[in-house]
Amino acid sequence: MKKIYLDQASTSYPKAPTVAEAVYTYLSQSAVNVNRGSYDCAYSIEEKVFETREQLCRLFHFPKIQNVIFTSNVTMSLNFLLKGLLRPGDHVLVSSMEHNAVMRPLTQLKDLGVSFTRIPCDCEGNLLLSKAADLIRPETKALVCLHASNVCGTLMPVEKLGAFCKKHGLVFLLDAAQTAGVFPLDMEAMQIDALAFTGHKGLRGPQGIGGFLIRDELVPKLTPLISGGTGSISHTEEIPEFMPDRFEAGTPNLPGILGLHAALSYLEGHSMEEMRNHELALTRYFLDGLHSVDPDGEYIRIIGKKDTDGRCAVVSVQTPKIDMAKAAYALDQTYGIMTRVGLHCAPSAHQTLGTYPEGTIRFSFGPENTKEEVDIALEALFAVAGKNR
Amino acid sequence: MKKIYLDQASTSYPKAPTVAEAVYTYLSQSAVNVNRGSYDCAYSIEEKVFETREQLCRLFHFPKIQNVIFTSNVTMSLNFLLKGLLRPGDHVLVSSMEHNAVMRPLTQLKDLGVSFTRIPCDCEGNLLLSKAADLIRPETKALVCLHASNVCGTLMPVEKLGAFCKKHGLVFLLDAAQTAGVFPLDMEAMQIDALAFTGHKGLRGPQGIGGFLIRDELVPKLTPLISGGTGSISHTEEIPEFMPDRFEAGTPNLPGILGLHAALSYLEGHSMEEMRNHELALTRYFLDGLHSVDPDGEYIRIIGKKDTDGRCAVVSVQTPKIDMAKAAYALDQTYGIMTRVGLHCAPSAHQTLGTYPEGTIRFSFGPENTKEEVDIALEALFAVAGKNR
Repeated sequence: MKKIYLDQASTSYPKAPTVAEAVYTYLSQSAVNVNRGSYDCAYSIEEKVFETREQLCRLFHFPKIQNVIFTSNVTMSLNFLLKGLLRPGDHVLVSSMEHNAVMRPLTQLKDLGVSFTRIPCDCEGNLLLSKAADLIRPETKALVCLHASNVCGTLMPVEKLGAFCKKHGLVFLLDAAQTAGVFPLDMEAMQIDALAFTGHKGLRGPQGIGGFLIRDELVPKLTPLISGGTGSISHTEEIPEFMPDRFEAGTPNLPGILGLHAALSYLEGHSMEEMRNHELALTRYFLDGLHSVDPDGEYIRIIGKKDTDGRCAVVSVQTPKIDMAKAAYALDQTYGIMTRVGLHCAPSAHQTLGTYPEGTIRFSFGPENTKEEVDIALEALFAVAGKNR
Repeated sequence: MKKIYLDQASTSYPKAPTVAEAVYTYLSQSAVNVNRGSYDCAYSIEEKVFETREQLCRLFHFPKIQNVIFTSNVTMSLNFLLKGLLRPGDHVLVSSMEHNAVMRPLTQLKDLGVSFTRIPCDCEGNLLLSKAADLIRPETKALVCLHASNVCGTLMPVEKLGAFCKKHGLVFLLDAAQTAGVFPLDMEAMQIDALAFTGHKGLRGPQGIGGFLIRDELVPKLTPLISGGTGSISHTEEIPEFMPDRFEAGTPNLPGILGLHAALSYLEGHSMEEMRNHELALTRYFLDGLHSVDPDGEYIRIIGKKDTDGRCAVVSVQTPKIDMAKAAYALDQTYGIMTRVGLHCAPSAHQTLGTYPEGTIRFSFGPENTKEEVDIALEALFAVAGKNR
């Protein structure tokens, strides 16, 4: 049975075509470290690491190469930012659609006297920005928010949020887990103070590498969550003040960075807009296919937006006639269709969407998925949901 | 010019023969996530992850598979352990030979009211354990210590330290960065409460993956440094209580784990003792070669032990007649010999050894280095140090 991978929001597959080979070449031919050796090939790897930071600066319209920090994933980046920035007494605004990568660190920080308030969203996941100003307190320090919901794909109004934060003197932290490499992001125009990304979703690099980009003004306010050897100012047990060493300690994930470098090179050689339009066309085709057969959602209920305005290629559905875990299992076992069922590490989002605690089955599309695959998925989904087309 | 890699203490090269291909196969053929998908191949990857935890349990004689935690490197593991365990008012013992992966987190923790005392070591890096008991205070909570010096290779008396900690009610944290995969480690016999390792040195896996193993009793005492989505109990914004989810959040570094899995499988198929004996034979050959030509260390001064008892295959030297950075540069450029010069992220160790602030040139040997390479290195080192043999 041919497998159809529609769990792109979890991790992209296939990876960009050059990624596996770049990692293989490094591991088999030159797996040396940077910063720590005085020999030629250490420098050539260091150059590639530097280029990767440059690529990320270009991608996110960010001016300062040394303020691009590598971490192991977006969760680590968000922990680094939240736990590094927030102090007892601080208050934070979040959307009600956040992933647990934001909510669990914030919940942990409650023990230290940090509090947070959720800006409400409607039942399609749209942020009700008009309600945000009233939630600001004197001690509100930051707003942290994902760019697109990992549950239903709804985009947040980043540009407006940037202006809102600027107006109210809040630090603006963006979680771009679902959109980096798919949607244009301009840290300057959007007034984003720090942007957290992961390398293995829209960027189509390997798992294990992610990072964040952070404005100069924020750097001295952030306590490094991780510290250790940096290969720099090794005469002291103090953490370097300069970037990126201040926030990068220990041996870097060089296979991961080189894989990401390959993925970013691929992205730069292709049209992000075309790839995004393809994903969104599949999303529209999927939504239309559901709606045309079952307009009332008797068998398959679409959660969130019914169209492709202001969303990414992530669609959640419920199957009222059959247990969703069983449905997802049947999709895989009988039809070879890989999806993700449950709460998607985002209970707050599901509460907002009215799908808590039962969750949804999530379909997510990538640039190499095809219309034929969506046809098969539609057919299969109706079959498992109990509806003959 | 043939390159000779003698910087194995920084990262091993070549990697275990199966590593690059395992990572390539995963990234090119099945780069899906675990825990997060309901489909077959997600389970098969999950099995490999589980097996890797099992392999690490076997390697370190540790009974509890779910208490094997993956991180990005040993620095991250040590930050996780130190920052998770220590509270304001706590006091810690360390050796005076520690790497900045221990010293920088502890220096950071001083701001939170944590203090530490260094157990002195002699000028060869041997721990003076007899001096340790007097350094214990009522608030002393833990002893953290590396297993082997990354500067001069001296081993710490792990078994005695385990007994010492047990006797005095201290938590014993071991940094096995330089010895995992090379020296036998038995967490039960050695009474180690938590062991931090990295995958890319003696284990010969890729950079970007490491971890720690932690005893049950310590788990509830450790605040998770990182939190986020775990793919488990996703209905709540609280961190799971159960392991490994309590300490593993976000998408795991699956290419890294699968690379480590391949490396550990290779290690299990070979004799660790034979590989270690080979490295130590090269070390002895190198030391003897230095000593026989220049017994007084006029041109090349050996730092630390002069023999191979109680050490790993790491040798530091100084070149009194020539600037060491220049010597290391010439070793690479003229002779193709890759070493590491400076303070090796371990100022405390260099202070102990009497080589601060000028540092040393470090040679480190791996299982695939050869006697012929050591001959070339000796010849080259004498030449750059100004001594004709």
